[in-house]
Amino acid sequence: MKRTTIKLADGRELIYFDLVDSADRDALDGRMLEPVESQAELRLDRATGDWVAIATHRQGRVHHPPTDICPLCPSSDGHSSEIPAPAYEVVVFENRFPSLAGRIGRCEVVCFTSEHAESFADLSEDRARLVLEAWIDRTEQLASLAGIEQIYCFENRGAEIGVTLAHPHGQIYAFSFIPPRTTKMVAVADTHRAATGRNLFEDLLAEARSAASRVVIAGEHWTAFVPYAARWPFEVHLYPHRRIPDLTRLTEAERAEFPVIYLELLRRFDRLFIQEGGAAVAAPTPYISAWHQAPKSGGSELALHLELFTVRRSADKLKFLAGVESGMESFVNDISPEVAAARLREVAS
Amino acid sequence: MKRTTIKLADGRELIYFDLVDSADRDALDGRMLEPVESQAELRLDRATGDWVAIATHRQGRVHHPPTDICPLCPSSDGHSSEIPAPAYEVVVFENRFPSLAGRIGRCEVVCFTSEHAESFADLSEDRARLVLEAWIDRTEQLASLAGIEQIYCFENRGAEIGVTLAHPHGQIYAFSFIPPRTTKMVAVADTHRAATGRNLFEDLLAEARSAASRVVIAGEHWTAFVPYAARWPFEVHLYPHRRIPDLTRLTEAERAEFPVIYLELLRRFDRLFIQEGGAAVAAPTPYISAWHQAPKSGGSELALHLELFTVRRSADKLKFLAGVESGMESFVNDISPEVAAARLREVAS
Repeated sequence: MKRTTIKLADGRELIYFDLVDSADRDALDGRMLEPVESQAELRLDRATGDWVAIATHRQGRVHHPPTDICPLCPSSDGHSSEIPAPAYEVVVFENRFPSLAGRIGRCEVVCFTSEHAESFADLSEDRARLVLEAWIDRTEQLASLAGIEQIYCFENRGAEIGVTLAHPHGQIYAFSFIPPRTTKMVAVADTHRAATGRNLFEDLLAEARSAASRVVIAGEHWTAFVPYAARWPFEVHLYPHRRIPDLTRLTEAERAEFPVIYLELLRRFDRLFIQEGGAAVAAPTPYISAWHQAPKSGGSELALHLELFTVRRSADKLKFLAGVESGMESFVNDISPEVAAARLREVAS
Repeated sequence: MKRTTIKLADGRELIYFDLVDSADRDALDGRMLEPVESQAELRLDRATGDWVAIATHRQGRVHHPPTDICPLCPSSDGHSSEIPAPAYEVVVFENRFPSLAGRIGRCEVVCFTSEHAESFADLSEDRARLVLEAWIDRTEQLASLAGIEQIYCFENRGAEIGVTLAHPHGQIYAFSFIPPRTTKMVAVADTHRAATGRNLFEDLLAEARSAASRVVIAGEHWTAFVPYAARWPFEVHLYPHRRIPDLTRLTEAERAEFPVIYLELLRRFDRLFIQEGGAAVAAPTPYISAWHQAPKSGGSELALHLELFTVRRSADKLKFLAGVESGMESFVNDISPEVAAARLREVAS
């Protein structure tokens, strides 16, 4: 793998990840680009103890641009995008409109491919592995920055969940604080350790593997299953069998198998809503894919895993977060986890 | 106020609330209606400690029915709805497709008016007061049921947040557990008491009232303000000045002033996105309005207040809950709380 770092016109960092060492990464960013002054600010919600990022400069960000000015496509003669090169494999760069910047964190964009019309599920195993290597690299590099507590790699896919750029990409947030979901996980895992002497996530994985009704894909090094108390219509958690705190600890064998299983999961998600007669719904399945990694402080019980879920609950219906979810942070799921798992096995390729 | 309880054809309870004692509430439910067998089940998410309701019978519920078969309109010669009477003021009934039922809770629907095309903001003060009295009645009655921990009165408004019935209505959840947002509030309020000897919510209200930049409406008995760490583009918290645990403790003076302030808030929300030239956006402002009340166990520090917010961040853009919010339960807000408060003062009537 070749890794090449350059600076964009406004000083932001951009990193190319290439499978071949011969990749030419000499192109320069020729744009006249004023640095964006980030007004991102963290405020503590004293009624709940949660941090909220107030990022007012983001209101002006690009919103569903036409394809010919896509900022994530490679640059061409007529169009200078965020990526100076005329083609790329995987590229990561600092977000021009970050929710977290300066002392409060950092936001990066990960472009999975230069092909605008593809999606992660269309990648070859080699190229998906390259994305994994980029996530590993960024986890290691960002965790070494002062004041960073947790590295969060994720993908939002689909206009239904608010994605404003159709080009296949994900994001990385380097948080300077521990986000609420992680805080809860660490607290219950610590309680579980104190009560049982065991690790919570090892127990959850072992239970899922023995109760086969919720298993979706059982690999040699990874298992994908629907959690017992799934919040979302279709939700899959993917764990390496060996408990590790973060992506940097994955072995070669684990890195090699990950693309096989993850690509199959994404392809099954896209087949979930194909109708009886074989007609697919118009838009591909929207999803959120989220890596949970141990924070730097006090998170020794948290096991690396990925949580993949969709807000679509049937071909023509979405799960919305309304009064119960957004008002009380309590979830109602209309699909049983065992039924969801059976459906996810049924759509295997 | 007159209060009349009847039974619907499948045994569910329905309660009319009327301003005048002469209201005729003798109409019977003439439908042949099989009781719905609720398969609602609570599952503990052991990775977070949160309860999730799995309610598989809800997938079959009514979804955007045409107006002439609206189940929340009064019944007429040609159409038997959920409400047998030919007109009503406020009516509450058990949800036919509850997320919580039996031993795990109860879900009720609150119809604010029999006028299908109106909204809460169109109500007169008298009629808004009648809704308040219905919420108070239900809080008292539901809290007396065995196994109920917390009463949650709320309204979802707008198709943008997934409302499937356009008729103006809200919902009441009687939870058999304490939902995550309440759990967090109680924990930080207990910590605040231990550290300072004071009540957290009294402090937050006092700070908001003295820092006038976030006040939206200052009444004699209630104050509406944007919280310091608002999660939503436009978010207002409405507190009575006297700290009380729940709606049942409101005095006559507080009950009398509430409609004046709440109706004005809702009307301002509907004026938020009127464009420069005076043209309104097509759809009225979607919002979630949520009453936070003290749970029955261990919630003595929690102060009654209402949280009102919209997912709309500009005339043509919504705030979506994607990877950061749904994956990490961490919020990014693109509008500063002080700017939001100024805008909400600007659109006063």
